[in-house]
Amino acid sequence: MTIPELTDVHAAWLPPEAFRAIGSRRTLVQADGPLAETVRAEVERARARYGGAAEGPYDLVLSLNAAEGADGYAIARRDGVTTVTGGDPAGLLYGFFHVVRLGEAAFGPDREPEHHRPAMRRRMLDHWDNIDVHPVMGQVERGYAGGSIFWSDGALRPDLTRVRAYGRLLAASGVNAVAINNVNVHATEARLLTDRLGEVAAIAAELRPYGIRVHLSVNFASPIALGGLPTADPLDEGVRAWWARTTEQVYAAIPDFGGYVVKADSEGQPGPFAYGRTHADGANMLAEALAPFGGVVHWRAFVYNHRQDWRDRSTDRARAAYDHFAPLDGRFAGNAILQVKHGPMDFQTREPVSPVILEMQGTRLAVELQVTQEYTGQQRHVCYLAPMWSEILAFENVAETGDLVAVSNVGDDRYWTGHPLAQANLYAFGRLAWDPGLDPAAVLDEWIDLTFAWPGESLRRTLHAMMDGSWRTYERYTAPLGVGFMVRPGHHYGPDVDGYEYTPWGTYHFADRDGVGVDRTRATGTGFTGQYPQPWSDIYESLERCPDELLLFFHHVPYGHVLHSGSTVIQHIYDTHFAGAEEAAEIRLHWEKLADTDAVDPDLYARVKERLDEQVRCAEEWRDQINAYFFRKSGVPDARGRHIS
Amino acid sequence: MTIPELTDVHAAWLPPEAFRAIGSRRTLVQADGPLAETVRAEVERARARYGGAAEGPYDLVLSLNAAEGADGYAIARRDGVTTVTGGDPAGLLYGFFHVVRLGEAAFGPDREPEHHRPAMRRRMLDHWDNIDVHPVMGQVERGYAGGSIFWSDGALRPDLTRVRAYGRLLAASGVNAVAINNVNVHATEARLLTDRLGEVAAIAAELRPYGIRVHLSVNFASPIALGGLPTADPLDEGVRAWWARTTEQVYAAIPDFGGYVVKADSEGQPGPFAYGRTHADGANMLAEALAPFGGVVHWRAFVYNHRQDWRDRSTDRARAAYDHFAPLDGRFAGNAILQVKHGPMDFQTREPVSPVILEMQGTRLAVELQVTQEYTGQQRHVCYLAPMWSEILAFENVAETGDLVAVSNVGDDRYWTGHPLAQANLYAFGRLAWDPGLDPAAVLDEWIDLTFAWPGESLRRTLHAMMDGSWRTYERYTAPLGVGFMVRPGHHYGPDVDGYEYTPWGTYHFADRDGVGVDRTRATGTGFTGQYPQPWSDIYESLERCPDELLLFFHHVPYGHVLHSGSTVIQHIYDTHFAGAEEAAEIRLHWEKLADTDAVDPDLYARVKERLDEQVRCAEEWRDQINAYFFRKSGVPDARGRHIS
Repeated sequence: MTIPELTDVHAAWLPPEAFRAIGSRRTLVQADGPLAETVRAEVERARARYGGAAEGPYDLVLSLNAAEGADGYAIARRDGVTTVTGGDPAGLLYGFFHVVRLGEAAFGPDREPEHHRPAMRRRMLDHWDNIDVHPVMGQVERGYAGGSIFWSDGALRPDLTRVRAYGRLLAASGVNAVAINNVNVHATEARLLTDRLGEVAAIAAELRPYGIRVHLSVNFASPIALGGLPTADPLDEGVRAWWARTTEQVYAAIPDFGGYVVKADSEGQPGPFAYGRTHADGANMLAEALAPFGGVVHWRAFVYNHRQDWRDRSTDRARAAYDHFAPLDGRFAGNAILQVKHGPMDFQTREPVSPVILEMQGTRLAVELQVTQEYTGQQRHVCYLAPMWSEILAFENVAETGDLVAVSNVGDDRYWTGHPLAQANLYAFGRLAWDPGLDPAAVLDEWIDLTFAWPGESLRRTLHAMMDGSWRTYERYTAPLGVGFMVRPGHHYGPDVDGYEYTPWGTYHFADRDGVGVDRTRATGTGFTGQYPQPWSDIYESLERCPDELLLFFHHVPYGHVLHSGSTVIQHIYDTHFAGAEEAAEIRLHWEKLADTDAVDPDLYARVKERLDEQVRCAEEWRDQINAYFFRKSGVPDARGRHIS
Repeated sequence: MTIPELTDVHAAWLPPEAFRAIGSRRTLVQADGPLAETVRAEVERARARYGGAAEGPYDLVLSLNAAEGADGYAIARRDGVTTVTGGDPAGLLYGFFHVVRLGEAAFGPDREPEHHRPAMRRRMLDHWDNIDVHPVMGQVERGYAGGSIFWSDGALRPDLTRVRAYGRLLAASGVNAVAINNVNVHATEARLLTDRLGEVAAIAAELRPYGIRVHLSVNFASPIALGGLPTADPLDEGVRAWWARTTEQVYAAIPDFGGYVVKADSEGQPGPFAYGRTHADGANMLAEALAPFGGVVHWRAFVYNHRQDWRDRSTDRARAAYDHFAPLDGRFAGNAILQVKHGPMDFQTREPVSPVILEMQGTRLAVELQVTQEYTGQQRHVCYLAPMWSEILAFENVAETGDLVAVSNVGDDRYWTGHPLAQANLYAFGRLAWDPGLDPAAVLDEWIDLTFAWPGESLRRTLHAMMDGSWRTYERYTAPLGVGFMVRPGHHYGPDVDGYEYTPWGTYHFADRDGVGVDRTRATGTGFTGQYPQPWSDIYESLERCPDELLLFFHHVPYGHVLHSGSTVIQHIYDTHFAGAEEAAEIRLHWEKLADTDAVDPDLYARVKERLDEQVRCAEEWRDQINAYFFRKSGVPDARGRHIS
């Protein structure tokens, strides 16, 4: 087991200093097998750097006890010895990284045993990486951190050290599965399933030592495109045989292969509708092929009509996933997992939780989050997303789904994520997938301690001041009150209030001179509120009870409508947009106080500073466009007399 | 002289049948030299096909007489002999094509001598062709007819037959100059000036037999990029010497080279501003290099701030060209030609004539039109532009500028122009450059007769019904009353009312709940009306006297403002948009009546039909978006009770 060493790439949350406490102690690893070897190698490397002795008496003992369960571990300290007991080798690895997180605190006073088990059995990142570079989308679809860490120049990267380093970072945050390619599976990438399978195996080999299984996005039409069959009909015997045979070959090459990810009948991708079959038929066909090997299929529920007529107000994209999938509840195979975006639309800054997640109790579900900041600032804006995810995961039964998936935000950028502070989102995703109940601020503290090696209070305070409230700041200066979008079409960066208003994409705000918002009520609207269980169905239906932050998602209201906050809708728009842009400027001010100190590396300082300048500019643009748009439309002046262009 | 023969490419307005009348007659060409050879070869080929005898007595005699002037010719018929007398060999060629246009009518009753001389000494097409293919813009910037006819796969096309055929078509319409590459001169294309000059020479060799001189777009920073100099300062001796030397080499390779075209300090292109020099300094430097060889520089006046703050209503892009160039009037060299777009903005469906054209009497000017339909339907919509050009050319002194330039609309498409009916625009440009007083409907008749070989009245009526009013139809369903834009940003196709409203491009409509339009008056607005001479300055300034079709270009008015037509602005918007979309549907109906007749070739029928379907769809989209936008904003219902989404 070689622990990856990278030069010219930022260490993220695993700099050498993160291992100082362990490395200066005496540690015993009482276990065998590949993952135990990884732990042993980590310990050796830390010891080599920080001079801990190889022999006892030991300060830290890591061992196995199946009672702690899969991926689980216990940690305790008594009589000057810290013990980590893994339920299995993966648990041992997670327990080891728990000690890393604690740092010196792991070796302080005695601790009563704590038992840790992940809330989600699968904690997974989806990469939207392509092999080929798309002229507009680039290599990583919705990627804001450069090219793919897996492929370059149309081929697997010859040096995969970085892939292993990525796996190591993920393991330290708790992630245990990675889908390596874009769910929009183009011609070149489709071949990863067959003649380019060796590339998948090579990536799997790099991630395996850190307990991460590899999954693959596949094209539903593969039997035609790759197999030369006349059909991809999921009930066709030849098609099923092709998938069975192909899957067998995948497992021959990668025995711990995780399974398939499929985007079918969505935004132009092929799917079972072409054959008059249901999505359960499609998913179950793949599930059947994967079952003998313990694999799963993640079948995405992101199915909607992207050729909608904007004139037709009765069609509602928010309804689509439920309308398509709820009738199929109970009909999916046991190893078919319906992967549902957390909200009914598409990763907006604020959405209600998808009713599919709340209602489909007879189906294995995975909740999909978006770590890559497509709609939340594209890693040019500081937007710490853990508070949003925390709210989502705390909602009703969301945390019980067992599978949490997110679109990754890394690329071949020196800082992994473009914006160095966006690393915290990747870290927090893994941690919340493990324990959705964690406090986002506490997770941020972990990330700060690891990344900046337990810095002083000053830097810690600065980063909290910048990041804790950054999602709500971003929400303030962008689309108001849950209405969503208002972004530039295509790239989705920056404001364009009507950008999607008269398009086929189903994402509207219906602003006119009298009011704004989407009427999704049962009484007078699209009836979307009826897809929710009680009490949410009635809460969202009710103009009085609907939470302010989702008001325009569920209701079309006059500009003078008074919110629970006491403000009118129009005044709320003005106030939040002035405030949001001001907060963006304050975030930058906090950072600028670090200039010419040694609190952070000058390169990292400069990178963040450059991004903050863009964030401030863009926040002002959002403020002015949104305010001008609604002022021109409503004619209502700002009650506080501020200038609106 | 080989006359080009193309297979698989539409013959446009020079099908073999266009030469039937000449080919079946006895013709004598009494002149020598290359252009006379061209005429002789044309005659020979026609005769070979249609069996006219080679010996006299002659039906048609072409000869020279300098009294007819450069490019001029006289045509007469007496005693059964038609005579064409060219003022020079080019005049002979134009006279020959005059006979082609007349067809059998050239050989009917006697005709008194008519003397034809071109109104414009230079009738020029600018190609926005690139050698490389841009991932978004394609190979021809704003090209809607495929790739370049000059280059493919990064190199000059090995077979330039089509270039010669193009030159032949142009000569038949009266064009005598072509700039072969995009005014945005990228790195590869910049080298056409130096080490890729051979490609320019090869193209010139193909166009020369049809009397067309080649011009080249050059990059102002060439002395740096190509010459390795530290500066491109137009007053630097080394820079001037570099241009002199480089130009000398150009003329060594192409003795009849026409000159340079330059877009400087515009939309990111380099220019003299970087050195604190004026545009006269820049243009005169190039003029000086070209003067010894009789060349000219076309210096584009399209200079404006494309990083404008949309919040700032005092900055007005319409003012930019005048503000930049009027102070330089009289300071340009005699062979420097200021090339001015016909309107102050950018080739919109309706603009007033640029005040630069009206006021800069001490500068040689070229008026620039856009044959490629960037803002007029992108060759998916029928939009016969001659009526617009005719209006522009009839305005004040416009026709006296001496130079008419247009952006070409051809590509390597089988029909040259994507939409076969868009060929008529290319033809009409040449004809109006020759004689701005021609009736657009008569020019269309010429085009119909040549292209469809003097068809019956039915097809002629159909084409007139489709095309005569198509520009005004297009105007009706797009941006209203001269306000312009409202197109999708970037590609500029289809409606997006606010698409440019909050951008740095300076193209706004300022619609709010009370009214719409740009106040460009002296009294309360940007003062742009003050750039016009009288009476136009006062006419445009006056809300009462301003022509309806330019009202929103010059004034911001309430929706209830009553037009000269008697309609309110808002009702005018509704009425014209319903009418425009209906007219588009009628245009298609006319065409559909030709289905299953032999009036036109089935391929051509199908191509036009496919475009018409798209036009009708798009016109309805324009209608509905514009109407919905203004209904939502104004709250004024349609007086005729029609449904607005």
